[in-house]
Order: sequence, then structure tokens, then C-alpha cells
Amino acid sequence: MSKNSQVQKKKILSDFAAKVRNRRNALGLTQEELAEKANCHVNYIGGIERATRNPSLTIIISIAKALEVPSKELMPN
Amino acid sequence: MSKNSQVQKKKILSDFAAKVRNRRNALGLTQEELAEKANCHVNYIGGIERATRNPSLTIIISIAKALEVPSKELMPN
Repeated sequence: MSKNSQVQKKKILSDFAAKVRNRRNALGLTQEELAEKANCHVNYIGGIERATRNPSLTIIISIAKALEVPSKELMPN
Repeated sequence: MSKNSQVQKKKILSDFAAKVRNRRNALGLTQEELAEKANCHVNYIGGIERATRNPSLTIIISIAKALEVPSKELMPN
């Protein structure tokens, strides 16, 4: 992977991380509570919010449901 | 994974598959041409369109760019 595409990948993951964190905080949920609602491990939510995890489509949908938003709202503009 | 969540997963992947195929056809692209534009392997595009692949966030973004649509348009309603 080129340096340029690594930078793009990091930006995509960071944008997603910020949307998840902001929405989670707006709902007043801890990472543990979000993980339980989304049926995934708290370490996975931590990885998402640190932009170190590249979530799959089905995980994005699970997280969006747990955050009570359409999945479109978590995607980049 | 429960049978119910497997059914949900299949539905998510099938919906995504249909959106990718419809948009690819609307652009008059072959799977090979889309794969080249999205910088991924043609077998991967085939797997997406057969709903056997669960693409990551960064792959969704690459495919959306190659299909010249916002990534939101490929997500479920």
C-alpha cells in the first residue's frame, strides 16, 4: 500500500472513530455499554474509537443500530 | 452466531451486493473494470456481488469512489 493510500485509510478510520465517539457520548453510553448493545467486545469498540480497527459492513450496521442512527450517518460525506 | 443474526447478515450483504451491481451496470462497467478502478481483485468484486464478502469500511469507500457515488448511497436505508 502506498504512503498516500495509508494516509487516506487513516483519515477514513479517524472520521468514523470520531462519529462513533461523538454519538456514543451524546447518548451518554460508556464503551462497555455500547459494546454490549452492539453485541461485540469492548476492546473492539476501543479499537474503532482509536481508529486502529477497520470495521466490516455488518459491524458498521450493528454499531449504527446500537447508536440509534442510520448507518449512512456514520459514513464520510 | 444465531440463525437470526446469520439471516440479518445475509440480508445486509445481499442489499449491498445489489446496490454495487446496479450502479456498476448503470455505469456500463464490467466487474474487471470496477476492480481496476477500485484497486482490488476482480474475485473480490465477484464475492461482493455474490454477497459472500463482508467488505471493510475502507473497501466500501474505495468501491463507492470507483462507482462515483457517495458511500452513504451504498448503505442500507
